[in-house]
Amino acid sequence: MAVEIKPLVKPSRLRRRAGLAGECLAEFLGTFVLIAFGCGVVAMTVAALPGSGRTEGPTVFFLGAGDWLLITWGWAMAVMFGIYVAGGVSGAHINPAVTLAFAVRRRFPWAKVVPYWASQVLGALAGAALVYAVYHDAINAFDAAMEGPKTNGHTLASFSIFATFPAPYFNGGVWGPLVDQIVGTAFLVMLVVAIIDLRNTAVKANLGPLVIGFVVAAIGMSFGANAGYAINPARDFGPRLFTWLAGWEDLAFPGSLAGAFSAYWWIPIVGPLVGGVIGVLVYDLFIGDVLHARAQQGVPPEPGRTRPTTSDED
Amino acid sequence: MAVEIKPLVKPSRLRRRAGLAGECLAEFLGTFVLIAFGCGVVAMTVAALPGSGRTEGPTVFFLGAGDWLLITWGWAMAVMFGIYVAGGVSGAHINPAVTLAFAVRRRFPWAKVVPYWASQVLGALAGAALVYAVYHDAINAFDAAMEGPKTNGHTLASFSIFATFPAPYFNGGVWGPLVDQIVGTAFLVMLVVAIIDLRNTAVKANLGPLVIGFVVAAIGMSFGANAGYAINPARDFGPRLFTWLAGWEDLAFPGSLAGAFSAYWWIPIVGPLVGGVIGVLVYDLFIGDVLHARAQQGVPPEPGRTRPTTSDED
Amino acid sequence: MAVEIKPLVKPSRLRRRAGLAGECLAEFLGTFVLIAFGCGVVAMTVAALPGSGRTEGPTVFFLGAGDWLLITWGWAMAVMFGIYVAGGVSGAHINPAVTLAFAVRRRFPWAKVVPYWASQVLGALAGAALVYAVYHDAINAFDAAMEGPKTNGHTLASFSIFATFPAPYFNGGVWGPLVDQIVGTAFLVMLVVAIIDLRNTAVKANLGPLVIGFVVAAIGMSFGANAGYAINPARDFGPRLFTWLAGWEDLAFPGSLAGAFSAYWWIPIVGPLVGGVIGVLVYDLFIGDVLHARAQQGVPPEPGRTRPTTSDED
Amino acid sequence: MAVEIKPLVKPSRLRRRAGLAGECLAEFLGTFVLIAFGCGVVAMTVAALPGSGRTEGPTVFFLGAGDWLLITWGWAMAVMFGIYVAGGVSGAHINPAVTLAFAVRRRFPWAKVVPYWASQVLGALAGAALVYAVYHDAINAFDAAMEGPKTNGHTLASFSIFATFPAPYFNGGVWGPLVDQIVGTAFLVMLVVAIIDLRNTAVKANLGPLVIGFVVAAIGMSFGANAGYAINPARDFGPRLFTWLAGWEDLAFPGSLAGAFSAYWWIPIVGPLVGGVIGVLVYDLFIGDVLHARAQQGVPPEPGRTRPTTSDED
Repeated sequence: MAVEIKPLVKPSRLRRRAGLAGECLAEFLGTFVLIAFGCGVVAMTVAALPGSGRTEGPTVFFLGAGDWLLITWGWAMAVMFGIYVAGGVSGAHINPAVTLAFAVRRRFPWAKVVPYWASQVLGALAGAALVYAVYHDAINAFDAAMEGPKTNGHTLASFSIFATFPAPYFNGGVWGPLVDQIVGTAFLVMLVVAIIDLRNTAVKANLGPLVIGFVVAAIGMSFGANAGYAINPARDFGPRLFTWLAGWEDLAFPGSLAGAFSAYWWIPIVGPLVGGVIGVLVYDLFIGDVLHARAQQGVPPEPGRTRPTTSDED
Repeated sequence: MAVEIKPLVKPSRLRRRAGLAGECLAEFLGTFVLIAFGCGVVAMTVAALPGSGRTEGPTVFFLGAGDWLLITWGWAMAVMFGIYVAGGVSGAHINPAVTLAFAVRRRFPWAKVVPYWASQVLGALAGAALVYAVYHDAINAFDAAMEGPKTNGHTLASFSIFATFPAPYFNGGVWGPLVDQIVGTAFLVMLVVAIIDLRNTAVKANLGPLVIGFVVAAIGMSFGANAGYAINPARDFGPRLFTWLAGWEDLAFPGSLAGAFSAYWWIPIVGPLVGGVIGVLVYDLFIGDVLHARAQQGVPPEPGRTRPTTSDED
Repeated sequence: MAVEIKPLVKPSRLRRRAGLAGECLAEFLGTFVLIAFGCGVVAMTVAALPGSGRTEGPTVFFLGAGDWLLITWGWAMAVMFGIYVAGGVSGAHINPAVTLAFAVRRRFPWAKVVPYWASQVLGALAGAALVYAVYHDAINAFDAAMEGPKTNGHTLASFSIFATFPAPYFNGGVWGPLVDQIVGTAFLVMLVVAIIDLRNTAVKANLGPLVIGFVVAAIGMSFGANAGYAINPARDFGPRLFTWLAGWEDLAFPGSLAGAFSAYWWIPIVGPLVGGVIGVLVYDLFIGDVLHARAQQGVPPEPGRTRPTTSDED
Repeated sequence: MAVEIKPLVKPSRLRRRAGLAGECLAEFLGTFVLIAFGCGVVAMTVAALPGSGRTEGPTVFFLGAGDWLLITWGWAMAVMFGIYVAGGVSGAHINPAVTLAFAVRRRFPWAKVVPYWASQVLGALAGAALVYAVYHDAINAFDAAMEGPKTNGHTLASFSIFATFPAPYFNGGVWGPLVDQIVGTAFLVMLVVAIIDLRNTAVKANLGPLVIGFVVAAIGMSFGANAGYAINPARDFGPRLFTWLAGWEDLAFPGSLAGAFSAYWWIPIVGPLVGGVIGVLVYDLFIGDVLHARAQQGVPPEPGRTRPTTSDED
């Protein structure tokens, strides 16, 4: 006997949800979860855990390996659960760079690209607002205890809870951070398309979101410190917009919004969009085309390292 | 040939266990495991590992990112194994907020709610007693080495092994910690219902408990330091009751049990119960209704990101 | 076409391996892997990583949360891979307490108990010897740099690489460490029987060894610092015997082997054997009997939290 | 309806990719991913995270347990995703020692050994070049801040981002590091063949790459600090060659390439090749032959610890 869970919305509204509207709701909630947990873990590490980081006097705040592990595991979980929430509805891109790359090489409909992007940015902005609602006491206490330059009482350290900026060793250069974002996002998309490619060793048992979470952990661990591994235009721009509205002002958009290209904020938008497309192209060039050629010629699939190694397989 | 493992209890008693009595036993043991491991890991971090935390003189005890990783992984395991123990019998709610939310939106029978709640609180109390039995030597040595205010020789730091209190930056406010508990538990229940929803990308291979453990790790990493992420009325109230009986007294119930609402202890009860219901409502509003609408209109399910990306799938 | 991998041993010898001899080889290798990786990670933390631990002067060596995370993850991996190596042959007990508990309540043949035990202890001794072979340079350098009491140049800190001893806060008491070993091993066996119980939510996809590794991580994180979570007579006694032979002498068996019961070494043998049986009894009393009663009365199995929550399941 | 993803390369070139050429492309990309993430995480820990490591003055740089956790998780991810990328095409050896061991005991064709080796070394070299491209600003800033001996401004600490050298406690000895590499690689190959052996408890749901990643984490945690756990000739030699070209010169090949056998660089080539073969031989001697003997005599397979423990299994 089938039992029904009564929907919450009226039948007249429910009908629309089966289409693009429902996918946009899912992308919104998935990206909201991503940013709530992702920016949440940085709020923990920077502001809420008094024993975190390493300060030299009250003006400089460093993160060490232990802090970085907390941040990278936290963002991995954020991605994993953003995907588990939205996966069955929208495919859980929760990243404009993924949406673009799928449109370019995975036949995701171009007509849906902009609606997906808008939902992702709005979800990210809402997630940042939630983090501020939950942590504003901690953030204010942290900012008050720090010395050095502030905007409306806020420091660059507390800005780092929400959005990203490049490491000081780049000395304000553009190419270093841009290459960093392209490389990080290229790996993200390359590995995502590998993990879901049924011709390859695609993860089963609906554990793909778990392993994609590990992909983001890997990028954070190996390509994270240069510029905070945004690797997602919505992840950076949504929360950045929130901090601009919430008082961080020039910390969010240094040199004003108008003086855009002398500033950093466009890099975690353009870099990931370019990088994601590169990632899927590299995958198809090195792997996808090979799998295609094998399928054409009837070469049996190689189940990779899980290939049985003895006669018992036959 | 089937082989039998002889039951331990008499046939006359065994009969009753197939019903609600058995489910209550399972909720008791599951929550007992949850608290034994969960409070156990905090006992490790605070009292038993001499190199943990960061002390400023003998009066102040801070936790840093490394300590927090130990605590969050430990609680994740605690949840995972509480669910593995009880899952096949009672569904392993091991949390009154989950039980309430399932009654409100997942048709869990209302008649079972209070028996489940009672079993959970008793299991949590027993788990805290076990932690004290195992760690009282460590706790006493730790408390003796600390200076500052004590009740019956016990410090607030050793109380934190068992139950929760808000961070100092809330300055005794009620709304900050209450929002914290509502948000944390809303995410807990939202993600649990996502992970077990077969219309979505429900985790298979009986690895749901593992991933739900990661949910609790995520909440601890991203929403943990404000007030210790109780997100479970039994998890906080059971051990709190134990410490009150075991000598922590006013550290457990500041201002006496009677002066309740000026104190903190009701917040990790009310906040989670409210938050859990919000969590399932938000899920159904953004995701559940969409899946419902699709099923009604015969839209084929989207297997999310594990969707195959080439023609080979067909 | 079936392809054959030619066996290494002669056909005459190969024949015997299909029986108990093969199971003993597997238990030997599985426990060897367990101890090689398990003692290996402690050697890393104590002796080989110069930035680990926290020393107060050159005489006292403390472990903090970061060190403990390294140790607990390392032992989790050690258990996981000990089981993956031996699981298909012997069931991979790799622990005399598991073997005993399975004989008492899971119908493991009593005749195999002593051969399993002997293989486990020998494997553990060999694993400790390998760790010494690989790390003796690091250990000697570490011991040389430490001050304080030594036996043949070896310190208690370097002894802790191989076997266990109780924390100083026990003040030489017997009951505290004994309860600690009983509780830790009871949880180990309770959770192992839960994870492999097909009537419950048994882990599938051959990921049981992974989750059992997490069980040992959980015990280490939550019940590890009291006395080093031996929870396995072979794990402690095998390496202890090795260190006694390799020069640690009275650090391994304080007060001589004869003055046994005034010393500690029997506790991680007796405690785990008792605790393991308690663990399986508690599981059967609270869970196993319920599942038995349900099966008898034809109550359909509850697939736990992975139970679908909507009509789509039907 | 089957949908096609159009290949990127011309049909004339595509044809060749179904054979060995495609496998070599996959080994190249898999090893490239391995080294990009693996050397990337060391670049993070050493150069890019200002709060990592423990320095004594500006000349000595130590890693502690927290740093080591970051490095070991990072390399685990690196291996996991190197395998996910290449697994379905080439089996994802991404390690000449695995290729050799599979040729010796798993009937991998000898004719493919040298092409696989060449692809792996080239992929590793390219991966190291990418890490330098992404991190050269961080590396230069780090090297500039350190004092002590330098080659072209580069320190041994920054060399350690790319390739390996033995711990100081070996005092330049050859046998200690050689045994270390043999043991580490023997475990690597032994555990890989266990995890993919369908007669044993082979990991399913295409999660083999995840668990093999954990194998490398385990080796890093338990056998990592002696000499940086190269356990892969391509992993060490490729990046070493890169650093030699990029200015580290005698730090990469102390005593010149000609004075080879007085130096270290040959040890992470010879040790792993020998160790890998030992690993598969030990596995077959202790486990493989037993499984073979059972199959011959019709003994039913033991599904290891995931074996059901009650009558319900039948």
